[in-house]
Amino acid sequence: MVLGTEDFRIPRRFVSVNVVDIEVARFRSAIDAVCTEISENERLASERLGAQYGAIFTAHLNLARDPKLREEIEELIRERTYAPEFASSRVLRRYAKLFQNLGNQYMAERAVDIFDLEKRLLRHLLGTEREELAHITEPVIVLATNLTPSETASLNPEFVLGFATEVGGHTSHTAILAGALEIPAVVGVGPFLSDVSGGDTIIIDGNHGEVIVDPDEPTLKRYRVTRDRIKTANQKLELLGQLESKTADGVPIKLYGNIEFPEEVDHCIKRGAEGVGLYRTEFLYLKDDREPSEEDHYNAYRRVVDPIPTLPVVIRTLDLGAEKFPHSLEDLAEVSPNPVLGLRSVRFTLRNLGLFKTQLRAILRAAVHGDIRIMFPLVTSVLELRQAKMILGDVMEDLEEEGIPFCRDIQVGMMVEVPSAALLADRFAEEVDFFSIGTNDLIQYTLAVDRANPTVADLYSAADPSILRLIRMVVAAAAKKDTPVVVCGQMSGDPLYTAVLIGMGIREMSATPFSLPIIKQVIRSITIPQAEEIAAHADTLDVARDVENYLRGELKKISPDEFS
Amino acid sequence: MVLGTEDFRIPRRFVSVNVVDIEVARFRSAIDAVCTEISENERLASERLGAQYGAIFTAHLNLARDPKLREEIEELIRERTYAPEFASSRVLRRYAKLFQNLGNQYMAERAVDIFDLEKRLLRHLLGTEREELAHITEPVIVLATNLTPSETASLNPEFVLGFATEVGGHTSHTAILAGALEIPAVVGVGPFLSDVSGGDTIIIDGNHGEVIVDPDEPTLKRYRVTRDRIKTANQKLELLGQLESKTADGVPIKLYGNIEFPEEVDHCIKRGAEGVGLYRTEFLYLKDDREPSEEDHYNAYRRVVDPIPTLPVVIRTLDLGAEKFPHSLEDLAEVSPNPVLGLRSVRFTLRNLGLFKTQLRAILRAAVHGDIRIMFPLVTSVLELRQAKMILGDVMEDLEEEGIPFCRDIQVGMMVEVPSAALLADRFAEEVDFFSIGTNDLIQYTLAVDRANPTVADLYSAADPSILRLIRMVVAAAAKKDTPVVVCGQMSGDPLYTAVLIGMGIREMSATPFSLPIIKQVIRSITIPQAEEIAAHADTLDVARDVENYLRGELKKISPDEFS
Repeated sequence: MVLGTEDFRIPRRFVSVNVVDIEVARFRSAIDAVCTEISENERLASERLGAQYGAIFTAHLNLARDPKLREEIEELIRERTYAPEFASSRVLRRYAKLFQNLGNQYMAERAVDIFDLEKRLLRHLLGTEREELAHITEPVIVLATNLTPSETASLNPEFVLGFATEVGGHTSHTAILAGALEIPAVVGVGPFLSDVSGGDTIIIDGNHGEVIVDPDEPTLKRYRVTRDRIKTANQKLELLGQLESKTADGVPIKLYGNIEFPEEVDHCIKRGAEGVGLYRTEFLYLKDDREPSEEDHYNAYRRVVDPIPTLPVVIRTLDLGAEKFPHSLEDLAEVSPNPVLGLRSVRFTLRNLGLFKTQLRAILRAAVHGDIRIMFPLVTSVLELRQAKMILGDVMEDLEEEGIPFCRDIQVGMMVEVPSAALLADRFAEEVDFFSIGTNDLIQYTLAVDRANPTVADLYSAADPSILRLIRMVVAAAAKKDTPVVVCGQMSGDPLYTAVLIGMGIREMSATPFSLPIIKQVIRSITIPQAEEIAAHADTLDVARDVENYLRGELKKISPDEFS
Repeated sequence: MVLGTEDFRIPRRFVSVNVVDIEVARFRSAIDAVCTEISENERLASERLGAQYGAIFTAHLNLARDPKLREEIEELIRERTYAPEFASSRVLRRYAKLFQNLGNQYMAERAVDIFDLEKRLLRHLLGTEREELAHITEPVIVLATNLTPSETASLNPEFVLGFATEVGGHTSHTAILAGALEIPAVVGVGPFLSDVSGGDTIIIDGNHGEVIVDPDEPTLKRYRVTRDRIKTANQKLELLGQLESKTADGVPIKLYGNIEFPEEVDHCIKRGAEGVGLYRTEFLYLKDDREPSEEDHYNAYRRVVDPIPTLPVVIRTLDLGAEKFPHSLEDLAEVSPNPVLGLRSVRFTLRNLGLFKTQLRAILRAAVHGDIRIMFPLVTSVLELRQAKMILGDVMEDLEEEGIPFCRDIQVGMMVEVPSAALLADRFAEEVDFFSIGTNDLIQYTLAVDRANPTVADLYSAADPSILRLIRMVVAAAAKKDTPVVVCGQMSGDPLYTAVLIGMGIREMSATPFSLPIIKQVIRSITIPQAEEIAAHADTLDVARDVENYLRGELKKISPDEFS
């Protein structure tokens, strides 16, 4: 299934010869519908603004009615058995391109009129089919320019064998989600859609970030073998879930799961998590066209905590903003040239107290039923943390007054993901119950690299010596106040970093459930002194690449089979 | 002078009654020219693509020829003595708005056709007048939605009494430039253009960031008094330029100037600079439609160094990217959702070696004639620094081979403005001759705040304890290797921070020439132990606001008159 740049599904390129007539008829009815629509706009504009303005639509109408255009499209459907969507798109884009090449700026800008016609036509052709992403009922691989996190969330792992997108970084939300759903995925592979058609054989190699179109037989065979090997390895790893998470010399390392959806809790425990270290609540906001109510929050939190009432569940308050805002919050969103450095996350919730309080109320109420903890993301200054805690206090007072049961002594923690928070960890340690180092953002700010931007992706690395230093600083500052430190970014889910993290003093990690068994395997293979030695050696290296290579070598020594 | 959102100058609202006929004639000739242009496009599209496509332009043409539209515009010129630009814009925008309100999305999108017509018409009406910003010859205040840095650079301080823009932050390039040119300016004041017309009396209060439209007599009087007081104070401060820059207990603190244009060197020295601590070279790229040649670079550098052959001149290599790319480099620029975290600065030059080498050659050649030093901006990793130095080595070899004289033992330094660079200052100190702390970017990344984004501006502060800590770390690491550290961001030009910087061990600062006298005054008023005490106390505070208040109090104690 190939999705076009306009987020339209441009389905399988070829239609069966038997249905060509039906497809042509479908095209005609769509283009007629477009004509009717444009006429209506023409009439409206003429009436309200005058005939001269209506005439803009007359030009569009003439184009839509142009028998030559229709002919060209129908010919492609009949002779090449193209689907009408594909045929229309192809013909109109060709014209648009011709327009753009006509040599002057104004002409080029008018290509927009052709795109407009394409858009209308596709909308009519596709009808409501666009929404079908959620309702796929046969095995497919989804290929798209981009998938929004909510589109990704709606993919059914039972049928979606894999997906690949042209845009996005390997640490983007979409990629994270693919991991959560355990769908093989390659995100941000660059332009490739023009080279594929529905029905092509595609290999999605999530491990190497590759998409292979029309592989030859030997390649296909090789990948089938790899796939089966991975399956077997996974089954083996799953067994690890039942074993204790402690180092070879007996020091327990707590492992938690990062989740996006309540439905993931089972999977989390099955994979050996001792609780939920990071429950991302953004999907409550992304799913609908309205803001989630207190009950929506409460029900979701109960679904997470009820199956594991004795295990910790860390709920992170709304962390939106760097990615696209959901429809329900669009009015509150800012338009900024650098959203990652803008009004997001706790900054956003502190400006939208109604929304913030709704979530806090639900968390406090649900916390009666388990070991729920609250965590504020993107805390930058001590002042901001105090403000967030003050709001939490206000909410408690409200609940108290209303006689609604809630958990008064809830643990309150913060993400350490802005460099300032890491640098001032000693100050923050005095005001929170726990830290959770969010390495994704921490790396991005410390190295000034947008992790979703492929042109600077080579600078983004958890192995950068500056990142290791910052983590050490946080661990040292927290130790003085006995503040627990969890690492919850992608770094904690990558076995490459397990030893160095432990060596730097980390004793708790939270990662995608999928990665927990392999992390546990590393933990069980090393001693604390070994890990400390690894961390000490890593500290002597200047360059991320050298650190990565060194850690890769050490990892292979620990467990030569699994990590080759 | 009021500039519209499309960057068109929409001049003085009213024209003299005497010239109404001339203005109407000017409008007619412009709209006729537009018609000719559209016909030409129509013909071209018809010929190349077919009549149906040409028809898109027919609709535009009919609109442009519409006698009713012409009548409406001419009526505004005649009866309200509106300038044709303003009258056209007004009428067409009203129609566009009507379109947008017609109730369906497609209709709304067609408003673009009206805007297209407006754009064409304004271009013809204004002809080359748009470029006149540089050729203003009477005293004006410039009001605009936005000014690009190059537009700002072209303002003549002799005639431009002040400017104000709706968009932009107080630390944006445009604002920095306004300071360099010593033009009173308020940048990013929010929407106000709809409330002013050409000819209105306007007060630009750069100190308080206010624009006052049509002030009453008492306000006007009050501001005239203030203006005169500032003038006197400035004259007094300029005298300071001649005195030595050392603390009350005799420790020299070197002061350098930050400049954007060679023309600023004089001013720099007059204000007491002991050299140029930061020569920003972006304007070489922003001024023209072509990339600057090696000779363009060389000539500019000679203009800087020739008047001061014995004083240091630190040339920063191209630091473009976070702001808009100039026209000449547009093809090389990436389009990224977070440009500040993207391909900018040394990252950009390392990807565009031709351009990088051209600049390096010119710097090395000019360095024969004075104490020119080279500085790489935005260095993130040791690897990157080594790459940049390697290119510099290659360029030296090329020059050697070509027998062109150049300076082989040029000092090579780097900006410390990415948190990773500050955190790894000890490693970097082994590979450079000097550090220059760029506080603007360092603050922005450390606090994850886009400094041009007004919605999060309250989080952006040089007084944040994390920033003070980072500066201390850099100073300590550099001291071990005797690497000189200059501070060159806006922090060094703000007297509020002079004492705390010296107290943390900083002995060199570079700032806008304008601010040097006042900085020198603070330096001459304090002793090192006093400064150290101030820095030590600032370190005990948790919150930027408290640090700022504390420093403000200390500054008042030092020199109660000047800083009230």
